[in-house]
Order: sequence, then C-alpha cells, then structure tokens
Amino acid sequence: MKESNQNTVNRSSPKTLGDRKRFLTGIKPSGDVHIGNYFGAIKPCIDLSKDVQNEVILMCADWHGLTNRAEIMRPGQLSHPLIALLLALGYNIKENSIILQSDFPQIQENSWYLSCATAAGLLERSHAYKDAIANGKVPTASLLFYPSLMSSDIITFDSQFVPVGKDQAQHLEYASDMAKLFNNLVGVDVYIAPQGVIQETPTLIGTDGERKMSKSYNNILPVFATKKELEKCVKEIKTDSKGLNDPKDPNSCVIFQIFKSFASDDAIAYMKEKLEKGVGYGYGHAKKDFVDEHEKVFGSHRERYEYYCNNFNEVKKLLEPGYEKARSYADNVTKRARQAFGLKSYLN
Amino acid sequence: MKESNQNTVNRSSPKTLGDRKRFLTGIKPSGDVHIGNYFGAIKPCIDLSKDVQNEVILMCADWHGLTNRAEIMRPGQLSHPLIALLLALGYNIKENSIILQSDFPQIQENSWYLSCATAAGLLERSHAYKDAIANGKVPTASLLFYPSLMSSDIITFDSQFVPVGKDQAQHLEYASDMAKLFNNLVGVDVYIAPQGVIQETPTLIGTDGERKMSKSYNNILPVFATKKELEKCVKEIKTDSKGLNDPKDPNSCVIFQIFKSFASDDAIAYMKEKLEKGVGYGYGHAKKDFVDEHEKVFGSHRERYEYYCNNFNEVKKLLEPGYEKARSYADNVTKRARQAFGLKSYLN
Repeated sequence: MKESNQNTVNRSSPKTLGDRKRFLTGIKPSGDVHIGNYFGAIKPCIDLSKDVQNEVILMCADWHGLTNRAEIMRPGQLSHPLIALLLALGYNIKENSIILQSDFPQIQENSWYLSCATAAGLLERSHAYKDAIANGKVPTASLLFYPSLMSSDIITFDSQFVPVGKDQAQHLEYASDMAKLFNNLVGVDVYIAPQGVIQETPTLIGTDGERKMSKSYNNILPVFATKKELEKCVKEIKTDSKGLNDPKDPNSCVIFQIFKSFASDDAIAYMKEKLEKGVGYGYGHAKKDFVDEHEKVFGSHRERYEYYCNNFNEVKKLLEPGYEKARSYADNVTKRARQAFGLKSYLN
Repeated sequence: MKESNQNTVNRSSPKTLGDRKRFLTGIKPSGDVHIGNYFGAIKPCIDLSKDVQNEVILMCADWHGLTNRAEIMRPGQLSHPLIALLLALGYNIKENSIILQSDFPQIQENSWYLSCATAAGLLERSHAYKDAIANGKVPTASLLFYPSLMSSDIITFDSQFVPVGKDQAQHLEYASDMAKLFNNLVGVDVYIAPQGVIQETPTLIGTDGERKMSKSYNNILPVFATKKELEKCVKEIKTDSKGLNDPKDPNSCVIFQIFKSFASDDAIAYMKEKLEKGVGYGYGHAKKDFVDEHEKVFGSHRERYEYYCNNFNEVKKLLEPGYEKARSYADNVTKRARQAFGLKSYLN
C-alpha cells in the first residue's frame, strides 16, 4: 500500500486550524428538554459557545435518533424544537455553528472510510450495542454501526476537542482509534484524532425525589413549561412532613435541590436561609418561589423559543453562516480522504 | 409509529417507472479484465444495454472495493480503466448510464436508512463476511456492513431488476428484504423491492487447463493484451502430447475452450473441424489462430480503450447524461425516505 502512495505520504498534521480550539458536540433530539438536560448538557454547550477562544460546532444528531425502531419518528419531530431551544437560551450562533447531522452527507461517506480501516469486532464492543442486547432488545444494524457514524461526526469537521461525560469516554476512544487506524492504512494523516475534554455532567434528582430526572421515569420539569404547567409539576415534588415553622434541611429538600440548578445566586441564598430558619416558610412557599424564579429565568426565553419554533426560515437564516463554514470543513476532509485512496470522480 | 404517520400512508408502488425495465448492475473494479470476466460479466452487461426495452444503470462499485484492507488502493486505480473498457467494448451509453458509486452520496444515506430497519444479526449472515472469517481473515466493519450498502446501490435508483449469477441470489434477498423492512417500519412504500434475474454466468477455464480463469490463479488472458503480450500468455496454455496429424478432441482442448468464448462462429467452426481432422493442424496452429482471432475481435476496441483511458474528460462527457438521470432518481428516492421519517433540512 505505502509503496503505491509514496508521493503523498505526509505524517504531519493535516491542517493548522487557526487560533480557536475547534469543539464538536452532539445532542440527540430525543424529547422535551427538561431541567435535568438543561443543567447536564445544554447549559455546558451554551457556556462553551460563549468563550471566544472556542469554535463550537453543535450537531443535532438526528441520524443517531433513528437507530431505535420504536422511536423512528422522533428525530424529525424534535430536531427543530431542539435547535430553537438552543438559540432561545443564548447559544452564541454568531461565532459558532449549529448543524443538523442529516444535512451533511459527508458524514456518511467518511463513516464508510473509517469502517474500511476498522475490524468488525470493534463495533460489537460498544456500550449502546451491548446494553440493547442485555436489555433483551433486537439491536438494529444501524445501532451496531453507531460507533462508526459517531466517530465520523467528529472527524468530518476536523474537530480537535469533544466534551464528554465520564460515561462517554468510550465514544472518544472510538473516534480517536478509528482515525488513527485509517491514517495508518493509507499512510497519510487524513483525519485528526480528537481529544476528549472530560466534563462534570451533574445529574439532577427528579420530582419523585428518588431517581435522576428523566423522561423515562416520568419525573421531569420541562424547561419551557408555562407557569400553569409548571405549577402542576411542582405540586408533585415530594416533601417530608415538616410543618410551616420547622427548620428544614436544604440538602434533603428536593425542591431546593432542583431549584439551585437554575436559580440566581441571590434566590438560592434566600431560599436556603428561609428553609433553615423555617419560621413561617413551608414547602408551599418554597414551591411558589420555585415557580416564580423559573418564570423569571426562563420566561422571556420561552417566548423566543416559541418564536423560533414557529419561524423555520428565520432559524435557517441564523444557521446559514455556520452551515457554510461546517460545509467547507467537511468538503475539505472528505477530499483528503478520497485523495488518500486516489478515488476518481466524474463530477467536477 | 403508524399513528403519527397516518396522513402519508400509501401502500401503493411509489412510482410508475415508464416503459423501460430499469436494471441495476454493479461491477467491482478489481483488476485487469480478462477473457473470463469478459465472458461472464462484461459481455452480458453490454448485451443488456443494447436491448432498447431496458434501461441499464451500470455501477462501477469502487466503495465496495475498499472493504478489503489489503487492496485499498485498487478502486482508485482501476475504476477509470474499467469504465473505459465498457465504453470501448460497445456498452450503449447513449441510452443507458454508467456511474461511479462514490459519486453518489445518496447511496450512503439510504444505506443508513435501510440499516435502521434491519436487525444487526442479519449482517453477519452474508456469505462474504462468513467467507472472510472462514479464511482466517479479520473482516472489516465495512465488509460487515456490505449487505446494507449493496442493497442501497439497488434501491437508491428505483431499480426493478438486477441480473444475478446463481451464487449471488443472497444479494437480492438482502436488497428485497431490507426494502420491505424499511417500508413496513415507516408505513409507506418508499423503496422498490427489486427482483433478481438469474443469469447463466459461464465460467471459463484458465490457461493452466485446471481451474477457472482468475487473477488469483495467475492463469488469465487479458482482454486488451497486445498481440505480443497475448502470444506470450497463449504459449503457456497446456496441451496434451498429440502430434501434428493426430485427430484432437476440441472438448478437451483448452485452447479451443477459451477460443470459443470470444471467436466468431465461422472461426469456431473452422478450428473445430481442423482439430477433429487433425491433418497438418497441431496445437501450434491452433495457438496462432487463437492470437489472430483475438486481435481481430479485440484489436480495434483496444485502441479505443487506450484512447478512453487517456482522455478522462472525454469519458466524463459521455457519462454526463446518464449521471444526470441517475442523480434525479437518487434524489427522488432519498427525498421519499426523508419524508417518511419527517426529517427536517435547513438546506433548501
């Protein structure tokens, strides 16, 4: 192989990427975004986009959402609301990108190239695939192929860094290993092997006070619930039997635990003090303060969210500059891969 | 699933395709084309393209050629010569198409959609994958995924018919099964389940007189060898010890067996008679007649082949109308698949 490719062997990094650190981060459009998601995944992304040292490509991973046959219609329904939500909550779209995975066919093409350099056995070791089997499900071929597409999400845009939770370290290993396997196979450094940036992803307790907040446990508080909807959800937060004037422990109070994930510092300090003193401040008061603060923090964003949800073309226009940039990265990477194989084309 | 999709459920065939029967046939660019390939695969394709009742899409399957790590540079080197050969030998490009697989990203996209409807276990049953393991090789992830991409080759162009050898029946089963699984999953007939057309694919004996003609046995006669090259190859064809004036059995004469795969009827009758009579006609004469007839049949084509090999842009121009047609089919099919999922796009 290497003989036939001597002229192009170049083991140095394929590109100097400019001064900003390029991050790729993906979110699967899987349901109503709740405060647990906001706190664990959405807010870290938005914070990342606000640091001018970073160039963030946020991918709404609709193709990955199709790997589960039971939820095959979700990505189509939920991708636009997810992007609307990110914009409404202040993702810095002027300096960064949000892209819809299925708008970038280059990802599928590079996924094929990665898979040509990777042993089949590697795919079966993915947690998602093993979990499906352990749970008695019949995994789809796409779930088996998931590590390849996911790795391609990253390498297709020359991403250098990927924020990962502790339980996602395997994802980065896949992307990094497959990139290196490919580069070794063709004898040229085509793909950048990305680095993981471990992120503390705090899990939030659900309204049942027992398990982490999750749609599957039906214990969530939606980020963009109206005041009325929220009041109904908050009512169900479990509390102990302490009375109006009993001192209460904020650390064991589910209301406070959720409250502090989104409230302002002042509001947090206020509720903490009130609970600890416990004079004339019962759980009913805490729940009311919860709803008021939620409205204060998310209310105006909710209006913008609804506006973006209903104005598809407006969103499209906001995404356009980022799309163009991402496309040029993807075209560039794909061209490098094709050149490494010497593939012909009758297109241009 | 079906509930959320009630409005679009339409179980009738997606398109009336016009009067011509649409065929898809794929050839992997895997090496110098020899008379065995010509006889078994190339000529049947060319014949198919000459029947005006057919619309043939001939795919040069370079992506499939990448599934074997040891031959990763071949598809890039061999795809253009293969297309040049098809054109030189009279493929009817005016009424049909020749396409390079890697020029159609829609194939990878639809491959993903098919894989979302298919159980992972199905992939492991492919002959190619099982053979690799049985031969002690470490199969690549792409080889494991091969049935999905191959099925997508077919369904992406709304192909109705696929010529298959007896040993390729499994390919068609994959394509047909995966198309139906997908249609059932989304509740709409998005993909056409193709039908196989069993083709007698005669295998030709090699110059060793022992095994079928195959590059891996080093017993081939290239279609476009020069007279000199051919003379050298033909010299090595094994013969028995019968003398100049002995009657010879054409059925056990390797020269004649290969000769009759490409020679004109008259030339075949002539050699047959000469061998059977055996008066003053030895194997040396037969070999000379072989080389002369080969030059007569392939000589002028060889010149055109060399011209096409060296004039990439000329070939590109010849392919253009077929490319446009194939692209419109592929775009149409991909659009139907995306609509079935309700996938969004910020592109157009």
